[in-house]
Amino acid sequence: MINTLYLPELREMLAQDRKDEMVEFCTAVHPGVTAEFMEGLTASEAWHILQHAEPFRRCEIFGFFTQDKQLEILANEDRNEIAQLIEVMSPDDRVDILDEMDQEIVDELLSLLSHEERRNVLRLREYPDSSAGSVMTTDVAKLDEHLTVSQALAELGHQAEELETIYYLYVVDDKDHLRGVVSAKQLVRSIVTPDRTLEELMEEDVVKVDALEDQESVAQIVARYDLLAIPVVDRQNRMLGIITHDDVIDVVMEEAQEDVQRIGAVNPLEETYLKTPILTLGWKRGIWLIILFFAALLTAFALEHYEARIEQHVWLVMFIPLVISAGGNSGGQSSTLIISSMARDEIKLGDWLKVIRREIAMGLILGSLLGLLGLGAGLFLAPKPLYALIIPITILCVVICGTLSGSLLPLFFRRMGLDPALMSNPFVAGIVDILGIIIYMSVAGAFYNMYPMTAAATG
Amino acid sequence: MINTLYLPELREMLAQDRKDEMVEFCTAVHPGVTAEFMEGLTASEAWHILQHAEPFRRCEIFGFFTQDKQLEILANEDRNEIAQLIEVMSPDDRVDILDEMDQEIVDELLSLLSHEERRNVLRLREYPDSSAGSVMTTDVAKLDEHLTVSQALAELGHQAEELETIYYLYVVDDKDHLRGVVSAKQLVRSIVTPDRTLEELMEEDVVKVDALEDQESVAQIVARYDLLAIPVVDRQNRMLGIITHDDVIDVVMEEAQEDVQRIGAVNPLEETYLKTPILTLGWKRGIWLIILFFAALLTAFALEHYEARIEQHVWLVMFIPLVISAGGNSGGQSSTLIISSMARDEIKLGDWLKVIRREIAMGLILGSLLGLLGLGAGLFLAPKPLYALIIPITILCVVICGTLSGSLLPLFFRRMGLDPALMSNPFVAGIVDILGIIIYMSVAGAFYNMYPMTAAATG
Repeated sequence: MINTLYLPELREMLAQDRKDEMVEFCTAVHPGVTAEFMEGLTASEAWHILQHAEPFRRCEIFGFFTQDKQLEILANEDRNEIAQLIEVMSPDDRVDILDEMDQEIVDELLSLLSHEERRNVLRLREYPDSSAGSVMTTDVAKLDEHLTVSQALAELGHQAEELETIYYLYVVDDKDHLRGVVSAKQLVRSIVTPDRTLEELMEEDVVKVDALEDQESVAQIVARYDLLAIPVVDRQNRMLGIITHDDVIDVVMEEAQEDVQRIGAVNPLEETYLKTPILTLGWKRGIWLIILFFAALLTAFALEHYEARIEQHVWLVMFIPLVISAGGNSGGQSSTLIISSMARDEIKLGDWLKVIRREIAMGLILGSLLGLLGLGAGLFLAPKPLYALIIPITILCVVICGTLSGSLLPLFFRRMGLDPALMSNPFVAGIVDILGIIIYMSVAGAFYNMYPMTAAATG
Repeated sequence: MINTLYLPELREMLAQDRKDEMVEFCTAVHPGVTAEFMEGLTASEAWHILQHAEPFRRCEIFGFFTQDKQLEILANEDRNEIAQLIEVMSPDDRVDILDEMDQEIVDELLSLLSHEERRNVLRLREYPDSSAGSVMTTDVAKLDEHLTVSQALAELGHQAEELETIYYLYVVDDKDHLRGVVSAKQLVRSIVTPDRTLEELMEEDVVKVDALEDQESVAQIVARYDLLAIPVVDRQNRMLGIITHDDVIDVVMEEAQEDVQRIGAVNPLEETYLKTPILTLGWKRGIWLIILFFAALLTAFALEHYEARIEQHVWLVMFIPLVISAGGNSGGQSSTLIISSMARDEIKLGDWLKVIRREIAMGLILGSLLGLLGLGAGLFLAPKPLYALIIPITILCVVICGTLSGSLLPLFFRRMGLDPALMSNPFVAGIVDILGIIIYMSVAGAFYNMYPMTAAATG
């Protein structure tokens, strides 16, 4: 929802160049709120107002614009102003946004950056997508191990302006090796002993990650230890940067979305839904649909196998969709539960026996329940009440098949080192479809063998 | 995976009562790591080792134990020691764990707490589940607006021991009304001007939430503004507590899991999968399966309606599961994409027209693709090549129905103020099942009307 309340006033300020008011507007509230007030402005109007904020504040507000507006500003406004903005941006955000821009503009902007910042950008861009290195920021409070508490506080006061977070101070030796960590809280608590050194205060066993580690496992570590930030090191334990809590929340949200997409048999999108080109989307969906199509094709051949029986007892056809959807739905529930529990580490591979026992019990309960309903429907549609029994027996067996394959498949995928979320719901449905047909026709066959129909009762 | 490396040594320390080593063990590494080293110990052994940590450290390590171990300790160890632990615990964690315990033990423990802490517990327990109040902590750095920078730093040094986080200092008036916020970073940067008051430094427009606000929207606000913590206030803007970043990550993970469960047609579980009683689980799954069963039952009546046509052309039966699974899978993909995009605010209700256009295009592309494959299968199984055309035409129409209902249903749910994740995949499958049957039989009927079969070619 665009906030239009302030738009006329903002435009008036801009037209009349009322500087003081624009400075006030840029500083009075949280930068995220300032950005929201400007949502209705054009990119160029917004950029002109931002010229009245200090560079750091400007960058903060800019960070809350939508990506489209950011890209429009970066592409169209004065290159020198933009380069200045990019210098101030935090290293991780700046790499993210540069990745979205035309290489030509990026090259031009890079040439306007200081040597040091340019090298920083180029180095960060090298890390593979979704690695710890690709989400870390290099603006980090690194302090020498020999500083005292009061020296450290003074040094922090200096550096704070440029740092994204000062809540952990990383203690390094002269070769940048990570030696320990002191939290801002510990430092503040130590004000009473201003001459102790960081070396004495620091915790040496630092929870840290390698730059090439996958971002999902980084997020899990941060969540596990309730950290505000986690340091990223190279193979030699040299401090490269940190990943901060806000990036972790983004990663958690992103990974949750990817999991949901995989469960629904879509290859995770790199862009948002609306921005993904239609053919890319078609490919990411089509590939799985084709696989599932061939799985479903097996049901056609299974049914062909039973053609004679079907021809004789056409009423059986009516329950085909019902039988396979009962199995597919209960199987989908099982796989959803198992996958989402494994994602949160609530179920481990070692629990497989417990899981199977529960799912068999579940299949019995749910199968009996649906079977009972199926019996009612069968009595209504079957040619003779006796044959109505085929339906509940089939449903019971199919639902148990569903819960079992729905729980075993994700466990199996995990065991094989694959992602358990991988298109599992439709995959389970595919397996249950074919099993459902076979079970249904076999039960029906057994019934008609035991209790052959008199010609008069042919349905 | 249980870390067994240190177990023998830990047990030896305990047996020989080597105090210094146990003190060292409790303080040397991150409390989360200490807890991991103790995973293999019994609850009672772990508790005895913890007696060698300072109360605050003990509480931190305890917080990283599994919930089962925590509950075992709380229920069995010395009540006075336990009451001391609970006094130190952060108010939100302590309420969470007390909620899991027998009321009898809780009453006994509450009677051992100080008057103030007991009132705090009882008040926090009043907040409804999943409200901001239920996840907030009341240990928060509240400072008077008239304090100077140096006074504030000294005061913080005092309070820090007891506070969960000091990264935001909330400025209140003498009636506890929230007036503004100063970040620890700003305070540290202001060391150079020690006589400025907090009132001058503070940001007055504080992003805050009401105690009764839903935890999911709290998490979204925190993520939106990249906050480390958010203050919780009552209707009169009195400061009640804060919600910290680690609780936000937990909420985000919990809500993601609930969304996945809803998409898979399971009522979200309150406990983990393995801990949910089997009958509760049966109920949370069964209720939706029954609804979906009645939806599927409609397909049976639809098929009964076409019984004469099916009897005449039994080969059509073979493609029933294939046709409906093609629709169900493509519809499931659509609803999954739309739901997960809406959850991240990437799609808004106003985008409905764009979404529909994309999904029609998607349906055309995917339907043609699967239709082509279907034509191949049809040529193989149909009695005459001409009739094989029924299959691709049906698949094309069904897939378009699938993508359309898969995208419209979540949008419609959202429009009605319902949760779009609500059992949408199986629901979409249900709709597509019945439409699929009707389309299939209508297309087949039209074909056989236009090109009646010669008796010889009857399949």
